Amino acid sequence: MSTEKMTIASAPRAKKSVALSGVTAGNTALCSVGRTGNDLHYRGYNILDFADKADFEEVAYLLIHEKWPNKTELVAYKQKLKKLRTIPQSLKNVLEQIPASAHPMDVMRTGCSMLGTLETEDDKHDIEAARTIGDRMIASFSSILLYWWHYSQNGNKIELDTDDDSIASHFLHLMHGKSPTEAQVRAMHISLNLYAEHEFNASTFAARVIAGTESDLHSAITGAIGALRGPKHGGANEAACIIQQRYQSADAAEADIRQRVSQKEIIIGFGHPVYTIGDPRNDMIKKVAQSLSKDRNELLMYDVADRLETVMWDLKKMFPNLDWFSAVSYHMLEIPTSLFTPIFIISRTSGWVAHVIEQRIDKKIIRPNANYTGPENQVWKPLDERA
Amino acid sequence: MSTEKMTIASAPRAKKSVALSGVTAGNTALCSVGRTGNDLHYRGYNILDFADKADFEEVAYLLIHEKWPNKTELVAYKQKLKKLRTIPQSLKNVLEQIPASAHPMDVMRTGCSMLGTLETEDDKHDIEAARTIGDRMIASFSSILLYWWHYSQNGNKIELDTDDDSIASHFLHLMHGKSPTEAQVRAMHISLNLYAEHEFNASTFAARVIAGTESDLHSAITGAIGALRGPKHGGANEAACIIQQRYQSADAAEADIRQRVSQKEIIIGFGHPVYTIGDPRNDMIKKVAQSLSKDRNELLMYDVADRLETVMWDLKKMFPNLDWFSAVSYHMLEIPTSLFTPIFIISRTSGWVAHVIEQRIDKKIIRPNANYTGPENQVWKPLDERA
Repeated sequence: MSTEKMTIASAPRAKKSVALSGVTAGNTALCSVGRTGNDLHYRGYNILDFADKADFEEVAYLLIHEKWPNKTELVAYKQKLKKLRTIPQSLKNVLEQIPASAHPMDVMRTGCSMLGTLETEDDKHDIEAARTIGDRMIASFSSILLYWWHYSQNGNKIELDTDDDSIASHFLHLMHGKSPTEAQVRAMHISLNLYAEHEFNASTFAARVIAGTESDLHSAITGAIGALRGPKHGGANEAACIIQQRYQSADAAEADIRQRVSQKEIIIGFGHPVYTIGDPRNDMIKKVAQSLSKDRNELLMYDVADRLETVMWDLKKMFPNLDWFSAVSYHMLEIPTSLFTPIFIISRTSGWVAHVIEQRIDKKIIRPNANYTGPENQVWKPLDERA
Repeated sequence: MSTEKMTIASAPRAKKSVALSGVTAGNTALCSVGRTGNDLHYRGYNILDFADKADFEEVAYLLIHEKWPNKTELVAYKQKLKKLRTIPQSLKNVLEQIPASAHPMDVMRTGCSMLGTLETEDDKHDIEAARTIGDRMIASFSSILLYWWHYSQNGNKIELDTDDDSIASHFLHLMHGKSPTEAQVRAMHISLNLYAEHEFNASTFAARVIAGTESDLHSAITGAIGALRGPKHGGANEAACIIQQRYQSADAAEADIRQRVSQKEIIIGFGHPVYTIGDPRNDMIKKVAQSLSKDRNELLMYDVADRLETVMWDLKKMFPNLDWFSAVSYHMLEIPTSLFTPIFIISRTSGWVAHVIEQRIDKKIIRPNANYTGPENQVWKPLDERA
């Protein structure tokens, strides 16, 4: 598939709901997206070739370290990441101050920022050092999230150092307090692989705007987390899950959504600012969702999601994006809905870090202009003269 | 001055070192900058008309609450801000975990993010609520910074609730543990007024990119702090201070800088991505710097800065930006150099919050495209087949 000569379509139509739509804001060698309407390549490799086969560590290595690791390199990389899993006591102390009512994305944003006060980047020109900070982040973000989660839920100070071979396995182990099955770990790898990188999406672009001022990596990733939090971006998979759990049958779902669409309600999880034909990640994550649902013998949520895919195409010619069946998959992995977007962080940090490194090499500050729409030539009055 | 009919110059030349230079990324009614080469207006008011006369609370009110307050409104606003000065115990606990070695900008980033876990924004469509969160930020940021500063320096848990009438006075009081003079407070107001707003600069743009996903206000401001931290943006006044303190005389400074410029070294504090003729804020902050220096009878640093202004114009036709004489002013207020950029945060938050509100009303996600420069059609090999 990826070896065929592609016809490069012209840039996607500018969309009114998107500022800078179709405008080139910089160069990247990391990713191309939607050039044929529904394709996604990381560093020139079609995600359909590898995302269901590779471990997330291979993909993170490709993005952060610029090549596919061979066997020896992968073993060494997994060893490195394993050693970067635990977090300093003062970061644990901070996480213990965050109430159970907090949004887990705010916890991740604060945890990443706090990590930056403890392990501050010294030399922003040292690319290898930046890569190691990136590795530190992807290795420790599960720990930050789940240390806080268990402590805030029931006061448990969980052990973060496990024997798990991968980030996927480590996450599920900390989440559930027991080793996950192979099928669960594979599902998690696929999901992390699919979420890892997506060109100049809003969170990545935020990271690059921050990095453009020559700020540090923790600032860039903290800002990216803040952008990902929004329901128009990463927050979508949480919203999708709520929709999918709302119904007792696929028929009930269909009837209700037809009604809502007729009332012009926007259904989260469908459509995409860049893809025009379909989301190339959908088939793969849909298979994961189906397989996990079958393993648990719980098909209602999957059936609802599947039916709504058909309905939305029928009504609006809209296709589900990656968030739609990710929601089913995570739910089948017994992950609480509010932790969905934090998983997206763990994965996308690999792309974010690689983009920050590119922006630094590019040496440009990102500083657009604005169209001024306010009043002109106002006459200032001192306080005493104001009505 | 501001009442004259201005000749609107065409958009400034696109600069190679700036991505999206000259590209319009959205609308704003908040600010116009450099349309005649060296002018700056907040909501249509020329800063030269008010920045040395108004209190910062008036300017913050203009930006966040959209009009100049009258006397009654200003009294009420100052009362409101006064009540928003203290911070929750759990935020203090977090600040106590941040080591003295941390960069104060990382402290501000973490403090703002942590505040968001404790006082999370509920309804992003409630503009009045967003304004109050903005007020909370400008009122409490001095407390966050200086609670950490004194605690990390010498273990003192300072009292944050003072009788000071303004943010300017509160900051200086917490900084030095005693009430500032009227001249010092006025100097601080002028500085805060000049730094408050500057259109789509990198930190403001970062805030708008984050807000475009419908994320929360704390995420947007946390990201903006991260962008401001970079030496190509807010970090510049710290770098300027280091240059100005390096010399024993203006003559020595001139000789050294002539040498450095001849070796193509970039001198921080000069030039600007938008202004072409000069920085309209320079004369006003220069007067502040001179006056504070005279009051202390310490003119060396001012003289060095003044001489280098002449030298840089002579050699490169480059003019000082706001950061240059701000560095002298803050130094004369006995503020440690590493706290300069955090002061910039306190001021600019008023502009950032107003921009976030605009971006929300605009309802657009900011999502540009990238120019793909990487390899095409790479053939993926499974792990076993990689060399």
